[in-house]
Parts: sequence; structure tokens; C-alpha cells
Amino acid sequence: MTQSFHIVILGGDGIGPEVCDQSVRLLEAMQPHLDNVEFRLDHHSVGVGEYQRSGEALPQSTFDACVESDAVLLGAMGLPNVRYPNGKEIAPQLDLREKLQLYGGVRPIQLFHEDDTPLKGHGPGDIDFVLVRESTEGLFYGRDAIADLDADEACNMLRITRSASERVCRLAFETARRRDRKKTVTLIDKANVLSSMVYFRHIFDEVAKDFPDIKAEHVYVDAAALFLVRRPQDFDVMVTENMFGDILSDLAAGLVGGMGMAPSGDIGDTAAVFQPSHGSAPDIAGQSIANPIAMHLSTAMMLEWLDHPETRRAAHALNAAIADVLSDPTQRTADMGGKLSTVEITDKIADRMSRRL
Amino acid sequence: MTQSFHIVILGGDGIGPEVCDQSVRLLEAMQPHLDNVEFRLDHHSVGVGEYQRSGEALPQSTFDACVESDAVLLGAMGLPNVRYPNGKEIAPQLDLREKLQLYGGVRPIQLFHEDDTPLKGHGPGDIDFVLVRESTEGLFYGRDAIADLDADEACNMLRITRSASERVCRLAFETARRRDRKKTVTLIDKANVLSSMVYFRHIFDEVAKDFPDIKAEHVYVDAAALFLVRRPQDFDVMVTENMFGDILSDLAAGLVGGMGMAPSGDIGDTAAVFQPSHGSAPDIAGQSIANPIAMHLSTAMMLEWLDHPETRRAAHALNAAIADVLSDPTQRTADMGGKLSTVEITDKIADRMSRRL
Ligand SMILES: CC(C)[C@H](C(=O)O)[C@@H](O)C(=O)O
Ligand SMILES: CC(C)[C@H](C(=O)O)[C@@H](O)C(=O)O
Repeated sequence: MTQSFHIVILGGDGIGPEVCDQSVRLLEAMQPHLDNVEFRLDHHSVGVGEYQRSGEALPQSTFDACVESDAVLLGAMGLPNVRYPNGKEIAPQLDLREKLQLYGGVRPIQLFHEDDTPLKGHGPGDIDFVLVRESTEGLFYGRDAIADLDADEACNMLRITRSASERVCRLAFETARRRDRKKTVTLIDKANVLSSMVYFRHIFDEVAKDFPDIKAEHVYVDAAALFLVRRPQDFDVMVTENMFGDILSDLAAGLVGGMGMAPSGDIGDTAAVFQPSHGSAPDIAGQSIANPIAMHLSTAMMLEWLDHPETRRAAHALNAAIADVLSDPTQRTADMGGKLSTVEITDKIADRMSRRL
Repeated sequence: MTQSFHIVILGGDGIGPEVCDQSVRLLEAMQPHLDNVEFRLDHHSVGVGEYQRSGEALPQSTFDACVESDAVLLGAMGLPNVRYPNGKEIAPQLDLREKLQLYGGVRPIQLFHEDDTPLKGHGPGDIDFVLVRESTEGLFYGRDAIADLDADEACNMLRITRSASERVCRLAFETARRRDRKKTVTLIDKANVLSSMVYFRHIFDEVAKDFPDIKAEHVYVDAAALFLVRRPQDFDVMVTENMFGDILSDLAAGLVGGMGMAPSGDIGDTAAVFQPSHGSAPDIAGQSIANPIAMHLSTAMMLEWLDHPETRRAAHALNAAIADVLSDPTQRTADMGGKLSTVEITDKIADRMSRRL
């Protein structure tokens, strides 16, 4: 019996559509090789372009499609020069995270070739960890506030709830259990200063008791930033608050080649959105020079997450094909000092992937 | 006419006293070489040791001495295993920052030898920037709150005031003006999401108008973390909120050898505290193996800040002596892979310093 997966495709803004198109090509290329699995690809509009057309960056029809979908594949959203009247950027990914309760921002960090890292003495395999970022609250909780520029002060609230903390810590421990690494989850907090972090740590420690096979440890966020540049090989799974996760995941991406190499999955209990960690890079949009690796790795994460034997097999083949291409440091797009176009590097991946399926 | 400088010495906890003692030795060694300048060194007790003795980590008499002083030199405070009843660490440096209104956490980041950085392709001179961290509010504003571990949530407030933002931005622009680098101040914010950061940016832009000779730019905090690992040479002076500054300054210290190489000055309008950025490292206390470089660099910052021609000359000689010792990568303490003791490396610095005075 064929299982049909309803996948919503949201190209978005800037380079979003062109990298997303390439991942769609990979999905189409693998389709004939998969038994009893059918992808139903459902394109919808979202982002600044949509905001300028209809006044809504995330139209109800798009949102409804996401709710009904098995997974969402998203390119990139936002443009630095188009903002809401309150001065903030148009970032409907934040709305998606909140409205779909995508509490776990899962950001794998993996080094494919020593040339890709700015760090001395690190090769593939030794930088390989996952950062799980809480994505529905923390310091982003009060993001709807509007600043009064004439006031004497402006405030935002950092909010940690028991329920959100429990589920994101649980996801982190489950992630460590599935990985074949150090079986360790590191909570990144600031419990030496902030009461909300004392609370977060308390809940983390409670959840840890349900995972006796996984080591649980704590590191302060400032120390974590230092450890990431001095001994990134020590980390397996990290879990942290929304704002801390935002900062540390970009830092971590910088260690393995930059945002063009950093995939992400925003995971909830009933929905999930997969997208590259990079932005819409309007300066290079439309030239087919954008790096699609993060997009393709996100696609592999989605296939894994769909959790069908055949999609898992496809994820495996796609990941292996990417690793294979990236094992040659000349096979890179311009952001990584290479000469391949968005399409060319995808062709190479498609070729290797198909041979494995 | 001799000018007398009243310098309060706070050794603190762990390795604090032993590194601080070495800086005191340097002050004593330079004293006979300076014309018309006298250091009045005034030792006081502070930190966990004092908390255990008297119940107060920052006794009133110590605080009063700080208020009356021309500058405070501090070793390190806190011990991971001794906490207040509310579970938070004993960190009277935070009280000092607030009570003395030390709004500018000035953290210079300087690479002395290519062996000291984990980054490829960077040598001395090319990583050389100053991070100015607002130190009286931001996310640390609500740090007195106590978490109710049985509640359903815990919150902290991030607070940005006009007055604190104006003075810290001003300090950043003045710092860039005094430095002979790119004459650029980069505001690190999260104005794409947080209204308090839209507000902070607005005030930064206003202050920037008073410094037409200095370039002002904005970078989001997540991007800043990535840029720090991929092109740290691009920064001159950065200014940011308290929590962001805490994270980014440790990250930056990691790029030039770690916390043992990172000095800091907590600057206010009427007082200033100089201390290494590292903690009290109780595991290595009492063995004379701690790295005193950050402490000595902090001492040089203090001498510069005292702003007398002779203390400026002394600061120059001390900085040059440190750079001279560190130009040989074998002249390091154990944390940097070397064999020198805390006293031995100080001897070498003292020797070179005295010859320059
Ligand atoms: C674009 C921005 C709103 C977003 C965030 O801050 O979460 C991005 O930085 C990310 O990490 O997904
Ligand atoms: C010890 C701690 C309270 C302190 C801080 O968070 O400010 C330290 O990390 C620092 O950077 O000075």
C-alpha cells in the first residue's frame, strides 16, 4: 500500500525559491526509486513577496496547508529592507514556530571537510553535534511588543514555562539517544545569574531522570560560546533557550562553513518545518550562485523525520551523496570559494544519490 | 607635586589572590620609575571567603573603600559550589557594577601570537578589537528575582533605558576615536525581533550623530557570533546589551587564547574596576600555575584609565613587556600549553617592563 506524504513547499524570498526548487528536484529524482511512497508536493506563497501582494506574509490558506501537511519545506523568508510599520523584519517563520508550536529548533552542525572550518586541526567527523533551540518562548516571547522610541525605557520579557521546557528537553534527550555519539545532552543556561534559568535547569534535571542512559550536564552560555571555538568536538546534543540558541547556532554554523551549510528542522508534536538556517540573501538572488547545501541537508532531515523505511533510506542516500560531493573541497559554490552554481552542485548530488537508491 | 592614587586591591577567591598579588608586584616594581606618582595600595576582602566569614560577600567597608578609590583592581570572585540560598552564584562583581554604576564593561580582545588562536590564518595585529558591554541593566536587570521551582513558569525582564544606553554608546564611540584602527563602532542587537532592541538601535543612531568622524554600523547578534569566528579582523569597537556582551566577550576571548588572556575594565563616571575576565578556577588555586596575563593586561588598562602622563607611560611599558614575552609562544603558563608558573611569567614581564621605564 502506497503511503502518500503531503509536503508543503514554501519558496519564500530572495534565494529561497531557487534553493528550494533544487531540493524539489531532488525529491522528484528520488521518487521513482522509492517503493510505496508518494510525495504530494503542494506549493504555497509566503514571505515578503506575499506581504507586498496581499498584505499578509503568512496567508491563512498557506497556514492551513501547513497544518494539514505531513511536513513543510521552506526556502528562506524576509528581506532586510522591507519591514512592518513597527520597524521589525518580516519573519513569518517566527509565526509558524509559535502557531504550529514548533518548539524544537533542531540544528545539526557537521563538518564535511577540514577546508570548510576556520578552526585549526579539525576534520570531518570530529565536529558533529546538534543544537536544540527552544523556539516558542524564551526572550522571543514578547516579540509582538512595539517600542515607543520617545519613552525612557523599553523592555522585553524572557519567559520559560514548565511545559515548553519539558518537551524541548525531552526532544534533546531523544535526539542524543538516537545518535551514535557521546550520548550526552548539555543544557546551556545562565543559572548563575537568572532565576528563569535556575528554573529551566531544574526542569532539565527532572527530565534527565527519565533518560538514565544519557549523560546530562550543564554549561553556562558564555562558557559554551568559548568552548564552541576551543573544543567543539566535546559536544553531542545541546539544548537551550530561544535567544541563546539563535546566537549559538549561528556561531556553530560558522565553524563548519557558514549559514550555507547549516540545515534546521523546527519540530512540533503535530507539524514540522524544515529550512536552511540562512537568510534570503537578496544580493545574490536570481543568479544561481547560492549554496543549496543547507537546503538539501534540511530536506534529508525532513525525509528522516517522516519516519517511513523508504524515506529514511532516501535520507540516508541524500546525506551520503552530499558528504560524497563535499569530500572534494573544490566542489563548492561561490560562498565557499568554489565555482559551482546552485544547479551544478545539485546535479552532482542528484547523480550520486540516484546511484545509491 | 606628587599625585597619589588610591587603588583598592580585592584578591577575591580561588586563583584571584595569587594572580592579583603578581599584578601588585608589577605596580610595586614600576613605582620607583615613575615621577610624581604614588600608588596607595589598599587591600580589602570580598567574595565567597568573605561571605563565609561574615555573611556578606561585599562588606560595607569594602564597598566604601571602592567608592573613595581612584580605581579598583580585582582578582576573581565566586566559587561554583558555594551559592546563595536561592541557588545563584555569589558574584559581587555584579553588585559592584550596579551600585557603582559601572555601565561600560570594556573588554579588549587582542591576539599576541598566531599559536594562541584556534583560528586558521590569523596573526598578531589582525585580531584587535574592543567589546563594550552594557553592564547595569539589559537581561541582568531582573537578576534579583528568585525562581519558584514549583510554579508553571519563570520570567526575567530585559530592560533598556535611554540614559544607560546613551552613556554606553558614547563610551564606545569615544573608545573608537582613541584607537588607531578602523574608527568604527558596531552595534550588536536583535532589532529584527525585539522591540527593546529597536529602541536600543534608535538611541545608538542618535548618539552616533555626535561622532561624525566615526563610522556607525549595526549587526544582529546571531550574525555577529558567526562573523567573530569567520572574520574577526573586521571589528574595531562593538557595543551591546549586557547578556549579549557576556556571551560574545567569552567567545572573543576564546579566539585569542581563552579567559586567561582576556582583561576587562568596568567603567563608570566616578569609579572603575579592573579585573581579568576569567573566573576563580578553584581547581588550580594555590599551585602558582594560573595564567596572570589577563590580570596584568587589566592592570595596564587601569594605569591607562588613571590618565596621568606617568601612569600612561607605565601602561605603555607594561603592555609592551607583555607583548614582548608573548611574542615567544614557549613563554606560556600551563593553560596555554606552556611550563611557566604564575610567578615566573610575571618575572619576565617585570624585567622587560622595568627596562622600558
Ligand atoms: C530571521 C530571524 C527572525 C531568525 C531568528 O531570530 O530566529 C533567524 O535568525 C533564525 O535563527 O531562524
Ligand atoms: C561570573 C558572572 C556573573 C559574570 C557575568 O555574567 O557577568 C561573568 O561571566 C562575566 O562575564 O563577568
